[in-house]
Amino acid sequence: MSLSAVEVQALISSGLPMADDIGFQVESVRPGFARTRVPFNARNIRPGGTLSGPLQMALADAAMYAAILASLDKGAMAVTSNLSINFLHKPAPADLVAEAVVLRMGRRLAFCEVRLLSGEGEDEQMVAHVTGSYALPSVREKAS
Amino acid sequence: MSLSAVEVQALISSGLPMADDIGFQVESVRPGFARTRVPFNARNIRPGGTLSGPLQMALADAAMYAAILASLDKGAMAVTSNLSINFLHKPAPADLVAEAVVLRMGRRLAFCEVRLLSGEGEDEQMVAHVTGSYALPSVREKAS
Amino acid sequence: MSLSAVEVQALISSGLPMADDIGFQVESVRPGFARTRVPFNARNIRPGGTLSGPLQMALADAAMYAAILASLDKGAMAVTSNLSINFLHKPAPADLVAEAVVLRMGRRLAFCEVRLLSGEGEDEQMVAHVTGSYALPSVREKAS
Amino acid sequence: MSLSAVEVQALISSGLPMADDIGFQVESVRPGFARTRVPFNARNIRPGGTLSGPLQMALADAAMYAAILASLDKGAMAVTSNLSINFLHKPAPADLVAEAVVLRMGRRLAFCEVRLLSGEGEDEQMVAHVTGSYALPSVREKAS
Repeated sequence: MSLSAVEVQALISSGLPMADDIGFQVESVRPGFARTRVPFNARNIRPGGTLSGPLQMALADAAMYAAILASLDKGAMAVTSNLSINFLHKPAPADLVAEAVVLRMGRRLAFCEVRLLSGEGEDEQMVAHVTGSYALPSVREKAS
Repeated sequence: MSLSAVEVQALISSGLPMADDIGFQVESVRPGFARTRVPFNARNIRPGGTLSGPLQMALADAAMYAAILASLDKGAMAVTSNLSINFLHKPAPADLVAEAVVLRMGRRLAFCEVRLLSGEGEDEQMVAHVTGSYALPSVREKAS
Repeated sequence: MSLSAVEVQALISSGLPMADDIGFQVESVRPGFARTRVPFNARNIRPGGTLSGPLQMALADAAMYAAILASLDKGAMAVTSNLSINFLHKPAPADLVAEAVVLRMGRRLAFCEVRLLSGEGEDEQMVAHVTGSYALPSVREKAS
Repeated sequence: MSLSAVEVQALISSGLPMADDIGFQVESVRPGFARTRVPFNARNIRPGGTLSGPLQMALADAAMYAAILASLDKGAMAVTSNLSINFLHKPAPADLVAEAVVLRMGRRLAFCEVRLLSGEGEDEQMVAHVTGSYALPSVREKAS
């Protein structure tokens, strides 16, 4: 059975102290998809009023991890293998949302894509585009 | 005239609060190169005793930025355009060092490569390999 | 004024002999988008009956270039700066289609995303996902 | 036992018709390393007198594949999972050399880095930098 948004968030918070630091929230998940958010926090602002690149990368990584966890059985694991980010626009000093999609769930590798969105409604803008691949350790390997 | 390690660290600390949070240090710079370090801190440890991926990405980004600042005249700027990281090994719970090299310094784009190193002496191991490109806003554009 | 599919194909064929070799076709363009195709050709088949990685990369690069040309005034140029491809599935021995979208058209850099599709109708499958960035030389620079 | 340069070249030529088309040569291999070359050929030249991006990507992919084959037992396989290239300089109309290094040889994934070099002696210049990851199907999986 797959995990709920609350279960995914609990797993990520326990595994990534930084996720809690930045206020990372899992808004919704379904197999192959996750929508996550970092609420605006003055602490994350760079001079110039924008959100830092490392914050964007951390959010994207956590969003892809959430989408993978929501696609697997409970107890599964995933380890980031590659992450590539293109920074498109400076995000506004506002909430940052990440929508992650699983492009392929293989037996040993999962491939994901993330859109980082800033602003609401008509002002919503994609500020970064991210792809990532994740190694999926098999149960047999985890046991050894 | 190019910047010293102390000057580069001051610039990065003022621009990236997260750099101070993780204890980011610029150990040495010269045009086209920077060596930086994140000292071991239990706060950065993930379950399993390893350092998080976002921490590694933040260190790599700051190291490339340091190498570029050390290659340009004072007052120059650089904005991350693309960052791609391959995670090779889980880093040990120890200091993490980044050695960044500028592969090409163009007029408008700089390309860098980073090796993230964990451990000392014979135990030193490359734990991640990173490439990045940075847009270099021209003086004329900055003024406008 | 922007270019038609026929004009974009002529520009690419004259600039990339390899495009003609593989039978590259521009099916449709509009500002920010291009759909291109490589018809099935036994020459492109690898042992195992699949299309080679370099063929997929060549098609993706040409598709992004087409989408950018279709977004700019006549006479504009673009030079590939970075290309990153994730291979998801082995393509079938059949036509290969690339749908390229411009994620951001800046003054000096354009960012694109491509989906490589194999098969028709219900059998259509994304076989690779590609992102790329392209430097856009300014008219002033081209003149110098 | 690992493979010789001649054996690696024969494997690549039989698997990649495009490699023969461009005159791909394996100059030397050892576990973890391969040096390969594409001799100058007017057919590969783009307007402006430079070598095409797809040619550079094809050479880099083949060089990484050669370095991996040279690191494994005979009969092993590798499938490109991700390739990321940064184009640094336009290559001259001359031979193009690729030096590929295996950064990590895991049980299921290999990570490589390639430098594409143009020119000889003092004129030698890195024209592109490439990283790639390759899935290594296990013997058990290949048998099934």
